[in-house]
Amino acid sequence: MIPTDPTELIEQARHGSRTALARLLTFVESGGANQLATAALAYRASAPYVLGVTGPPGAGKSTLTDQLINVVLERGSFGGVDAFDQVSVLCVDPSSPFTGGAILGDRIRMQGHATNEHVFIRSMATRGHLGGLSLAVPDAVRVLGAANFRLVLVETVGVGQMEVEIASAADTTIVVVNPGWGDAMQANKAGLLEVADIFVINKADRAGVSETRRDLDQMLDLGTVHEWRPPILETVATDGAGVAELWDAVVEHRSFIEGGPIAERRRARMHVELDKVLGAMVRTRIGALAHGDAYEEQITALLAGTTDPYRAAETLLDDA
Amino acid sequence: MIPTDPTELIEQARHGSRTALARLLTFVESGGANQLATAALAYRASAPYVLGVTGPPGAGKSTLTDQLINVVLERGSFGGVDAFDQVSVLCVDPSSPFTGGAILGDRIRMQGHATNEHVFIRSMATRGHLGGLSLAVPDAVRVLGAANFRLVLVETVGVGQMEVEIASAADTTIVVVNPGWGDAMQANKAGLLEVADIFVINKADRAGVSETRRDLDQMLDLGTVHEWRPPILETVATDGAGVAELWDAVVEHRSFIEGGPIAERRRARMHVELDKVLGAMVRTRIGALAHGDAYEEQITALLAGTTDPYRAAETLLDDA
Repeated sequence: MIPTDPTELIEQARHGSRTALARLLTFVESGGANQLATAALAYRASAPYVLGVTGPPGAGKSTLTDQLINVVLERGSFGGVDAFDQVSVLCVDPSSPFTGGAILGDRIRMQGHATNEHVFIRSMATRGHLGGLSLAVPDAVRVLGAANFRLVLVETVGVGQMEVEIASAADTTIVVVNPGWGDAMQANKAGLLEVADIFVINKADRAGVSETRRDLDQMLDLGTVHEWRPPILETVATDGAGVAELWDAVVEHRSFIEGGPIAERRRARMHVELDKVLGAMVRTRIGALAHGDAYEEQITALLAGTTDPYRAAETLLDDA
Repeated sequence: MIPTDPTELIEQARHGSRTALARLLTFVESGGANQLATAALAYRASAPYVLGVTGPPGAGKSTLTDQLINVVLERGSFGGVDAFDQVSVLCVDPSSPFTGGAILGDRIRMQGHATNEHVFIRSMATRGHLGGLSLAVPDAVRVLGAANFRLVLVETVGVGQMEVEIASAADTTIVVVNPGWGDAMQANKAGLLEVADIFVINKADRAGVSETRRDLDQMLDLGTVHEWRPPILETVATDGAGVAELWDAVVEHRSFIEGGPIAERRRARMHVELDKVLGAMVRTRIGALAHGDAYEEQITALLAGTTDPYRAAETLLDDA
């Protein structure tokens, strides 16, 4: 029987129960007391390495992720640092109005691994988490870490602000484009450029690869100069071409950031996350403030002209 | 000499000093201690009647406002209720990146009144108010009320959410459209329908008036049934045709709401305003929270795995 207590569930998940893990992730998505209890435990375990994969719909991210999993499991370690025999994937599509917590398409595309005990794939939905997906995903990552996954791939569909934000809350972020990618990403080129640690031109067997590479190179030349210049790799995910080299680039990036920026990077990520939680919590508190007797008293005072909105707000906040 | 103390400025503004009034409105736009002191005084005076005018750019709102001022000053009273010999206009264009506090175009269009001592026209900008224009405008309205204006016209340019929100924080809201208006307002038809107390088809000497009227009527038929059905008037603002009738409709709407809904309406508006101030104030407090030692301690604890973001946020909020 599956328990409903987060402490026991984490214990079972740590020992390999996928059912326990799935329930914990549902807690994370659903918000409320179980989510808080789950987060309290999950954040005490060490964080897994997070590999973000983003890019416009149709760029071939799922197929690429699929192939990356093959390479990772074959190598059985992460650049000689961690040995591991299991990988997890969180699929996130903020624009999808699904309700069941599953992007079926992604699962089907990853069907090579659907029954593989070394691979755990989950499509994230949000059903009540106070901060939405942008908070639920980092929580889910930590739950996977607590369940002994050392590597989590976070795949987001789309190049909107939220998608990019979620994917870039990673240790290494891969941005997947296609030959002739320009139009699909025009809207958020600068945002993608800013978050990419590695660019992949997938479907590189099609025409236009060199133009796309030139385009990316020019953008990188024009952008801020960082110590790490994102490499531009080419893959054909459908037959696996270039995927081993992509993984090598991920390993190289990991050793680069672990030589320095990783602490800073994780600290910055914690800032972002804590600020989001603070914001969400405060909105909840304001919501509660705005429904009490004290609030109605202030409204009455405002209508009577005995206070002003700033003093009224101060009073409510100080008494809260 | 113009004082800098809000109490004295309000006193001077009440006795007709436009320079004092202008300075108070600059306080409101600029935020800070003077804004708080100004609001504290202004909200203690009785609120003026607010007439909102909104619609897409180019609909002829400024010309219409100009003509309305003529009618109002000619009549010298508001439906026999208030007698007054001065009118004020706040021009708001949230999308305009102006910095000097003036939309020159509006002033020029209203030049018939630019030197009229019975008319006070101000283009609102926000230079630091913690809640932006959507809070600065209601504050400015109250300042005008404290300066003995019994009628304030708030004209917003555009049909975006903020423009409509600002214009609809009025006792009577006029939505100005043109023949063949459909495309210009498609994006926010429902929003406009919801806030309109009176529809005006301006430039009614052009083709397409009856189609536009039919279109509006159909929308009203499909919408929620309220006790007040917004009348649809026709004007040609450039020559003043229909403007007296528009003012009559405003008077009629005033007497309708003063027969009942006005208290409820103003209470609802106070709710909106207080919630905005609460939100803005809390964001300021979070901003302060996010730069203190306590915050950095929580970040360090998060990185060490001795807390989670939810507990950390609770701690910071409870200690704030």
